[in-house]
Order: sequence, then structure tokens, then C-alpha cells
Amino acid sequence: MITVGIYGASGYTGQELLKVLVRHPETKVVALTSRKYKGIPIADIYPIFKGLTDDTFIDASPEDVAGLCDAVFLAVPHGEAMEVAPFFLKAGKKVIDLSADYRLRNVDIYEEWYKEHTSAELISEAVYGLPELYRDDIENARLVANPGCYPTGAILGLAPVVKENCIDSSSIIVDAKSGVSGAGRELSIGSLFCEVNEGFKAYKICTHRHTPEIEQELSLLAGSEINVSFVPHLIPVNRGILSTIYGTLRKNMTASDLIAFYKTFYKDEIFVRVYEEGTYPNISSVKGSNYCDIGLTLDDRTGRVVIITAIDNLMKGAAGQAVQNMNLMFGLPEEMGLKFVSLFP
Amino acid sequence: MITVGIYGASGYTGQELLKVLVRHPETKVVALTSRKYKGIPIADIYPIFKGLTDDTFIDASPEDVAGLCDAVFLAVPHGEAMEVAPFFLKAGKKVIDLSADYRLRNVDIYEEWYKEHTSAELISEAVYGLPELYRDDIENARLVANPGCYPTGAILGLAPVVKENCIDSSSIIVDAKSGVSGAGRELSIGSLFCEVNEGFKAYKICTHRHTPEIEQELSLLAGSEINVSFVPHLIPVNRGILSTIYGTLRKNMTASDLIAFYKTFYKDEIFVRVYEEGTYPNISSVKGSNYCDIGLTLDDRTGRVVIITAIDNLMKGAAGQAVQNMNLMFGLPEEMGLKFVSLFP
Amino acid sequence: MITVGIYGASGYTGQELLKVLVRHPETKVVALTSRKYKGIPIADIYPIFKGLTDDTFIDASPEDVAGLCDAVFLAVPHGEAMEVAPFFLKAGKKVIDLSADYRLRNVDIYEEWYKEHTSAELISEAVYGLPELYRDDIENARLVANPGCYPTGAILGLAPVVKENCIDSSSIIVDAKSGVSGAGRELSIGSLFCEVNEGFKAYKICTHRHTPEIEQELSLLAGSEINVSFVPHLIPVNRGILSTIYGTLRKNMTASDLIAFYKTFYKDEIFVRVYEEGTYPNISSVKGSNYCDIGLTLDDRTGRVVIITAIDNLMKGAAGQAVQNMNLMFGLPEEMGLKFVSLFP
Amino acid sequence: MITVGIYGASGYTGQELLKVLVRHPETKVVALTSRKYKGIPIADIYPIFKGLTDDTFIDASPEDVAGLCDAVFLAVPHGEAMEVAPFFLKAGKKVIDLSADYRLRNVDIYEEWYKEHTSAELISEAVYGLPELYRDDIENARLVANPGCYPTGAILGLAPVVKENCIDSSSIIVDAKSGVSGAGRELSIGSLFCEVNEGFKAYKICTHRHTPEIEQELSLLAGSEINVSFVPHLIPVNRGILSTIYGTLRKNMTASDLIAFYKTFYKDEIFVRVYEEGTYPNISSVKGSNYCDIGLTLDDRTGRVVIITAIDNLMKGAAGQAVQNMNLMFGLPEEMGLKFVSLFP
Repeated sequence: MITVGIYGASGYTGQELLKVLVRHPETKVVALTSRKYKGIPIADIYPIFKGLTDDTFIDASPEDVAGLCDAVFLAVPHGEAMEVAPFFLKAGKKVIDLSADYRLRNVDIYEEWYKEHTSAELISEAVYGLPELYRDDIENARLVANPGCYPTGAILGLAPVVKENCIDSSSIIVDAKSGVSGAGRELSIGSLFCEVNEGFKAYKICTHRHTPEIEQELSLLAGSEINVSFVPHLIPVNRGILSTIYGTLRKNMTASDLIAFYKTFYKDEIFVRVYEEGTYPNISSVKGSNYCDIGLTLDDRTGRVVIITAIDNLMKGAAGQAVQNMNLMFGLPEEMGLKFVSLFP
Repeated sequence: MITVGIYGASGYTGQELLKVLVRHPETKVVALTSRKYKGIPIADIYPIFKGLTDDTFIDASPEDVAGLCDAVFLAVPHGEAMEVAPFFLKAGKKVIDLSADYRLRNVDIYEEWYKEHTSAELISEAVYGLPELYRDDIENARLVANPGCYPTGAILGLAPVVKENCIDSSSIIVDAKSGVSGAGRELSIGSLFCEVNEGFKAYKICTHRHTPEIEQELSLLAGSEINVSFVPHLIPVNRGILSTIYGTLRKNMTASDLIAFYKTFYKDEIFVRVYEEGTYPNISSVKGSNYCDIGLTLDDRTGRVVIITAIDNLMKGAAGQAVQNMNLMFGLPEEMGLKFVSLFP
Repeated sequence: MITVGIYGASGYTGQELLKVLVRHPETKVVALTSRKYKGIPIADIYPIFKGLTDDTFIDASPEDVAGLCDAVFLAVPHGEAMEVAPFFLKAGKKVIDLSADYRLRNVDIYEEWYKEHTSAELISEAVYGLPELYRDDIENARLVANPGCYPTGAILGLAPVVKENCIDSSSIIVDAKSGVSGAGRELSIGSLFCEVNEGFKAYKICTHRHTPEIEQELSLLAGSEINVSFVPHLIPVNRGILSTIYGTLRKNMTASDLIAFYKTFYKDEIFVRVYEEGTYPNISSVKGSNYCDIGLTLDDRTGRVVIITAIDNLMKGAAGQAVQNMNLMFGLPEEMGLKFVSLFP
Repeated sequence: MITVGIYGASGYTGQELLKVLVRHPETKVVALTSRKYKGIPIADIYPIFKGLTDDTFIDASPEDVAGLCDAVFLAVPHGEAMEVAPFFLKAGKKVIDLSADYRLRNVDIYEEWYKEHTSAELISEAVYGLPELYRDDIENARLVANPGCYPTGAILGLAPVVKENCIDSSSIIVDAKSGVSGAGRELSIGSLFCEVNEGFKAYKICTHRHTPEIEQELSLLAGSEINVSFVPHLIPVNRGILSTIYGTLRKNMTASDLIAFYKTFYKDEIFVRVYEEGTYPNISSVKGSNYCDIGLTLDDRTGRVVIITAIDNLMKGAAGQAVQNMNLMFGLPEEMGLKFVSLFP
């Protein structure tokens, strides 16, 4: 059994991790930290855990947590993760960081979009935790930077065409739509039920912090710098991200060629499902699962490829992918504990 | 491995059963019937199954299905189940009927509320599939009548106080609220998104067919005839039933006494969770799980007990309970394949 | 033109009042106060007002506001209203208080359920602003206590049978369900989208502060003290309250008699719609309107009357009723500026 | 008073028209046709009309309807409108057609995307009913082709930049998201509550019939042929369309220049609201109103303009715009009967 800790366990991502880990056959959760809910059983905060765990939130130092476990998931906000990751690594623990702190390889870009980095020396060591692209590196990593939710859907949707140079690299637009759990459990007027329900809006238009993360990975795949227009929107649902991605085709391919190409590209990927021609994903088909569903077509009239991807932002976009990474880091089957079917309807 | 068939697999209950059974460690689904979708892969109708099963709907006779499997789940509407159950039983198969056809022990009451019964001879043999009340009988049953969704929540909420004669048996009111999946996947204007969303209404007020089922079980528990006022409502959510139950207390008990009594009554039940004083269930805490959550209090000013129960209508109210019954019928651990945590948020 | 002020205009009720008043043919809004948003145009906080009003929130003293207007709507929380109402009255202004401060005629009961009252001397003068019951008094009132949202639906549903002594006064249960705007725009985890959406729960079971308000009015109608069991629930919709009301019939009446009686009782009421036998209200039919819709039936098997009422909690349950009261206080047609049709779907 | 008929009044658009027209100070609705609901009071089908109108659906011939009224709104599906419009025009009535039948000026394109046209001779006479572009023509029209819901949001968002040639005409992408009422009240599995709720998907990707309508109007504005990639999505809300529009800037302009330009372009338009820099529309701000809200920015990193527009698909996208057109056709103030504020929340 792998003993694991969740550092910052009281948010939606933290409880989602716990949900996965309590049923994982090879893990034992030994520490759930939360300053806010210190001493309170997690089942009091999240009644879904009644009867499943008596675990209580603790407010322990990184050192104390490190003393308890083999692996630590950091589910704290960016800025806090980089403060504690060094302790865990120094103690010889494997770290899966769900914040943005080690995702950007260029510290200047991190500091431009986020804030000053206090453990930049670890960036070069961190592996970007998208198993479909970096499986081998993840297996050997001590520190995995779990991808952002939006980047997961955008990069998996674009990787094949960008890597093979099928589309004009200056033509990429990612129009993404996310469920509200992506905003976390923080109090803000914009997250109140009545503000969100029966509404729909774009936000942080072309200024969202996931932009440089998407660009970094696409640029690496292409071997040249790529900028994208990234516009996120808020859907009045709890979970799910649908990304509608546009790019101008450079090669002579049909929709059917493109789909065949995607099926080949992802043929060994258990968590990527490429749809048949004329069918497209719906976030309801991945809700609660670790899948990334992909559908695509070609707009013959304009020469654009349109790629649609759907993920559950809390699963493949956060906790599920984090456990997928943990499985790889510990030599377990990649899908262990992650074979969830969507809770449709 | 138990080979199982789902007879009438194309509705919400059918696909929910499949969802549970494909991950159940001791079952193998060998037949999914649907007249409507004959020959079509279930993953084409419900994309959640992509990558999990290549199963295709068949339109097979009961005899053919019987030839394939050890157990059959009937997920057809009432009236159809009683036509096919005799064939499965004759062929020596175990049957879990999710329709209403064998729930009412008095055929006259069945015929008053439903329609003429064509296999009434089986009624006396059928066991009402509420494991918390009839576990031993279920273990030995050939034919289990899986309870209705509303009755499950109402009966589990009332069983302790009714059995111990704690409340006035003429005072019981069940004000229940259900998610929309309870109406199935049939086409009707009333089930359209725009008709339901941002709405809330009562329906079939004191005339819903689950009324005699609730009354039958409460009467058996009390040892005397009980009538209840049962008013169902439609909540604009996919899943869940919250039942708010009222009854006038006859004994000198506090809220705390009542809760202690419920905890004792259900102390060995893995799927019943009794809440602490002052806390009450929310359907979101049981979504996707097989739990029945119960909270209760006493209205000192009027002398009424108020009991709140929450279930997922498709799980403990249908497919989950059906698999719980199957486990019992085949001597498997009751919770096998059913340890789902709610998909909150 | 009547000049009006909204004291505490930044919440959902405040903006709803403004929405009604900016289109009212005989009112001119001259003051919108908000400490929090002082100096900010209301259209910046609520973009629905773009192009309709340039009004800016002010943080003015009651005296200053009184100097500007003929009538003041108090849309501040209870406790604050009783601090400022005396100033407005002293200045000769008419006051419609949407808080609970002057609703309860017995100051002891107010202080038991709320807090110490600081202007109790005004309680005896205040008129309970339910026009269907107190029209004449409202016309002559200086201070109107606008009813609570739940009490409006409960009292209008029960008034006929309670006044005529048709039901057993000890048998009344009000099982009410409200949209989320009833909780206001305050920040709390329980009001976050992900906590409410796909959920349903009861809250403040038999302890909600609207209980004594309902009981007061029913007791006055009956001429004897009535206690009720009142259980509110939260529906994942923005607006609307559906109340399902139970009482044991004492008279020999059919459902049809009861409906005829209700139609007669409310025959002159423009904002009460009594439904035909076998049809019942849905909150979606009153959304955005000032109607209270009522449907009822008799449960022959238990002898209970079941009454269903639907209102929009922000309209007939708050702002709409407040303007209805203002119309009466100023001798205007009662329905002026209030003829809204529900925004279905 | 203008006497008006609604031909095909039983759908969501029909009832929305009625809602607007019953409160319009200069119209009297004299005919509501519906084959399906012939003889049934509209208040029985849509209870929102209880107490407002006793009107009953009739199944009358176009000739009969023409005999009753000055103006006719066609709210029947495409294909049916072109069958009846000639009768109304022959009878000297003004016609506002809410179907697609007279929107496309090129009958070949109509027949390519829709079906054979049976009254193509009227196409040249029909005026495209977007008042912001064709006000003068509408004032003199006998037959107005009310724009599609998606085209309204797309064209109003693009008109300024396309007309002034500010963006590369080959670069336009319209990523649109619509509430479910856009699908009408027809029975289909895809419109069931449980299929839509908690879901989000794209549909008819680059094949939606509104594509040629958008292209026609943009091409006319530009003076050269424009093709666009148009991808509609389904939002789980009742009402509203948000269009996120992308185009590559050709001129040297800042976001602030663009906004100033839009404000000037629409300065006399009562139903277009251009947002300040850094603020963007939400469909909840236009729900139930006739506004088209527009926000825009510039993605400096890619040189793309991003334009966001929000409308209520049943109002500015259908019934509201139809009445706006009627006002113009009859010389009434354009905004008469249309000054609705959004029903937020």
C-alpha cells in the first residue's frame, strides 16, 4: 500500500482526490490537511464520505505530513505549492502538484502570468503530468506538475495536428467552456447559484493564466513558437469542460483522414476516446470519469479543422489525472482505481 | 461469474444497471434487450459506454435470453414484466423485476391501481426486495420485486417508528420530491428541458401508484392498516429523491432518543446512514451511490416527527438496490460492486 | 409622480424593486442606497439596468433620503429596518418595510425569534401588507410590514379554509420549497452554485423565523391560536416558492366544493388565480409575475385537504407585493405597474 | 388598434409573441392558430396566460385569419410559411415571417440548405427584418423575414467591423451557444431534461442552416463574399444566445478604438448596448428583454478581435424583434411594448 497525503484537502479538488484514493486498491490516505477545517471530520464538511472514512482534517506542517506518507498531492493554490514542495522532495517523497507552480518551464513566463517563484530551481526537474505525452518521464519523476484543466482538453485535442504540422500554427483558437467547480469552493459573488444559473458568459478573455501553459506545450510539440487565442466561458453545470478548437488545415486531408489519424495517434491510450465521424462529445458523457473524448470534423467551406474535446475538469482535468500520474510514478497499472463510468444522466 | 441479462435495457434504469454490472467483479452481462434499438451498440445510444463494452442491443425472446444467463433483471414497464417473468422462472433463472408487477401482495389492489394481472400466481412467491426489511427472504427468493423509488425512501424513513408504534398511524404524510430521471426516457412535453428547468410542481397528488406500495409495507410493519397522504413533486435535477415525512409522535421521546433509536435499528445496514441531530440529508450527498441517508427531528411545538430521507432514485431506488438483491440471491457480499461515493459536486 | 427611495437597494430584492419601479407609470426613483456600492452606478452591479437608468448608489442617512422622497421601501435586513423607519415616519413619509421588523404584532414573539426590538412603539401602527386580507388598513397606513415570502404563499393558501374553520386547526403542515434568490446575495458556501445545483434539501426544519408569522395570521383568521409545522426546502432554481399545505378536513366538502369556495373567496383578487379541479400550479407559471396561483384537492382516503400555492418569491413574495402595497397607500390602481406575465420558458 | 394574428401560436415563439402582444398598447390579438390544440384555451396549454386572456386556439385557413386582422405573424416551421404568406399578402395584410422562408435572397441557396421554395416570387420583395440594418426598408415592407436567432447575434456583433473592413473577411469564426428553447417544443430525446441538464455539446458543426444567412448579410455589408465557420452549442438554460466571434484585425486599432467605433455605429439604437472596455455580456442580463448586448476586446498576442454578443433567442432572436418590425411597419415607436428589463436573477 502506498501511503498518501493530500495537502490542502478541503476544496473540490481535494475531496475529489480523496474520493478516488479511498477506493484505490493500492493507496491508503494518511493525511488530509486544511487550516480552515482543522480537527473537523471530512464527513462533516462533505457528507458524501459518511460511512466511508472517519478521517479528520489536520493542520500539519509539510515536514509532519512528509513523515507520514510516500506520496503527497498538493491541492493548495498556486504560490502555496512552491513553498512546500521542496520539503516533501527533500524528505524523499514523490510529489504531484495540482497547482500551476511547476507547469511552466520558463520561470519568467511564470512570473509574468502568476507571481514571483520561490523554488524555481525545481522547475527543470518537474515533469508536465500529461501521461499521453510524457509517460516515460512521469514514471521516473519525483515531482509532477499536474496540468491545468483547460490545457488538458486543449492539448489533447491539438497534439496530433500540431505535432504533425497539419494546421497553420498561427490559426489556433481555443473556445473553451467549463463547469463551475473549476472556480473552486471560494466565496465570490460570481460563484453564487443565482449569478450563474440561467447565465452564460465568457471571462478572462485572452488573458486567462492557462494560455501560456497551452502555448508552451503546443510549441514543444510543433518545435516552434505558437500563440493561441484562448477564451474560457462558464457553463451552468457542476462539472465538465468542452473545448471547441479551430485551426486552418495545411494538408490535404478529409475529415475521415483526420479521424483515422487521431485514432492511430491515441490507439494505446485508455483514457482518450476518439469519436466516429459525425459524432461529437458531450460533457455529460465524461462526467465523473477520467476520459478525454475527442470528436472532429473539417469545415470544407473555410478549410478549418474543428476539434471538440470533453473532459471532467475535476477528474481528467485534476484529481483523476493526478492519480493516473501517481500510478505511473509507482509502477502501478495506469488505470488502477480510475475505471469510472460517467454518471449519466 | 454470474451471467446476467437486462431485459429492457435501453431506458435510464437499464443503462444504470449495465453501468453497475460491467464493473461488478462477479457478473458478466450477456444480454441487453431492446426492441427499439435492436442491433445498435449500446455505446451509440449511451456514449458513456465507449471503450467499456461493445455490447449491442438484441431483440430476443424471453426464452432466448433465459438460455444465456443465470439471472435476469426486468427493466421493462409494468405490464410487460408479468408477461415474461414466468418464462424466466420456468427456465430456472433468478429474476429481479424492477417494475411494479410483483410488488403488491394483494392482486386486487394491483389491478385497482395498475391493470389486469396475467401472472398473479407468482405474486405470493415474489419477495419485496428491500434488503433492510426482507434480507433472509431475498436470499432464498427466485423472484424479487424490486421496490419503487418513492417507496424505498418512504419505507426506510418510516420503518423504525412504524414498527415500534411510535407515531399515530393515521397521521402519516409523505411529501416527496424526485429528480427527472424518475420519469424515464419516454418522450413527453412534461419532460422537456424547458418545461422542467426553473420549474417545480407537485403531480399525481394523492393518486400516485406508489401509494398502495408504501401503505402495504407500513401496514405490515405496524400490524394494522395504514393509509398515508403521498404527494410527489418534480425537482429540476437529474437524480435523487428527498422525502419529507411527517407523523404525530405517540411516545415520550426526544429528537435525540429518536435518532439513537434509528441508529440502533439500522446499525448493521451498510447502505443506510443515520445523521446526527441537527443535520439532514441532501440528495447531492447520495447522487450515484446506493445509500439511503436519514435525518430526523421533533417539532416540539406541534408534537410531530419530521423524517428526511435521501436516495438516488436510479441507484438505491432502482438499479443499485436490484444489484444488492442479486448479491443476496447469489450469496455474494451484499455491497459487492456497489461501493460508490456520491459524485459531488 | 410619487418620488420613491429604496433604502438598501443592492440586494436581489432591492434591484427587483427598482426593476418594477423604473417602469411604473406613477413613480420616480430618487434614491438608491447602498453602503457597499456607494458611488457606483447600479448598472455596473446589475447590467440589466444598462440603458435604463444612470442611477448611482448613494450612502445617505435616513434623514437625507427622507428629504428626497414621498415613499421609502426598506430593503435592508431585519434589525436595520427598525433603526431607520422612525426617521422616515417622523419626516411624514410612507414606509413599506420588506424586512421582518414590524410583521409580528407581539414584540415578545419578535424578540424570541429575532432580536431585541428598538422601535417597538411602531408595531401597533404597522399594517401587515397582505392586500388580500388587509386592503382597507393598507390604504390608510403610514407603515406597512411587507409579508415574508413563505408566509405569503402559506397564508393565501390557507386563509379560506382557516377563516371558515373547514380544517382541524391542529393538523396544518406547510411543506414549502423555495428558489435560491430567497437567500439573498450574501456570500455563503451554501449558496454557491456547485453546492445547490443538482441538490435538494430541507433546512431550518420547524425552526424557520417565518413560522410565527404564519401562525400569527392564521390565528387571527381562525380566532384561536394555531401552530403549524413549517419545513422549508431549497430548490435549485432562481425564483419561486411552491408550498404544499396539508390539513384535515372538518366539514363535509368535496374537492369541487373547496375549489368553488376558493374561487368565491378570491373572486375580486386580481393577483390570486385559483386553478380548476385536477390542475395545479408550477412555479414556472408565476416566475416574474405578481400572481399567487392556488390549486387544491382532497385526499379522500385520508380526509386531508392538499393545497398547492405558487408565487415568485421576489415578486408577490417581496418587491411586487411591496409595490402593490404602495399603490394602495397612494390611492393608485392596485395592479398599476404590476401586470407582468411569467417569463416562461 | 392593430388587429394581429399569430399563425402557428402553440410553440415557444408563438406564446412569446402573445406575451408581448397582449401587453402592447396598440395591438389586439384576434387569432391564434394551432392545429394540434384547436379549441383549447391557450391558458390551458400555457398557464402563464390565466387571468390575462381567454383566447382559444383555432384551426383557421389563412384566408379566414386574413379576414380578421391587419398583421399576421407566421410562427410556423420553414416550409409552411411559404405556403401561407401569399394568401395574407394577397389579402392586403402585412406579414412578419419568423421562419427562414424569405430570409435568403438567393433561392438556390435556400433550396440547397432547406427545401424547394414554393413562393420564390416573393423573395425579392421580402425585407430582412434586422431594424438596425434595414430600418427604412422595413418601414415600407409588406413582408418582413424576421432574422434567425443565431444570425441576429452574429450579424449585430460583426456589422461594424465587416462594414468598415476592419477584419480579414476570411478569418471569421462564430462560436455560438444557445439555450434550449431555441429547439422549440417538439418532442425529441435530445431535448429531454436529463439529456440536456448537466451537459454541454456542439451540434450541426459547420452545417447549421443559419450559416448561409449569416454569410449573406456579412457579404452584403462587406460588398464581397464572406464565408464563416459557424459552430452552435447547446447551453443547459432556457433562454439566451451568447456568440463569441473571432476575426483577425486588419487595421491599426486598439480595443478602446474598437469600442468607441461600436458605440458610434450603434449610437441611435435603443436595443443595442455596447459595453465598456473590460466588461462583457452575460445572457442573464438580456433574459426576457429585446436587447443585444455587445462587448469586445483585442487579443494583442494574436491580433484577433474577440466580439461577444448576448441576446434572448425568444425576444431579440424571435418574438421581440418581430414586434419591433411590426412597430416599424405600422409607423409606431420602435420600442413600443418592448421595454422589458431582464428577469435577473
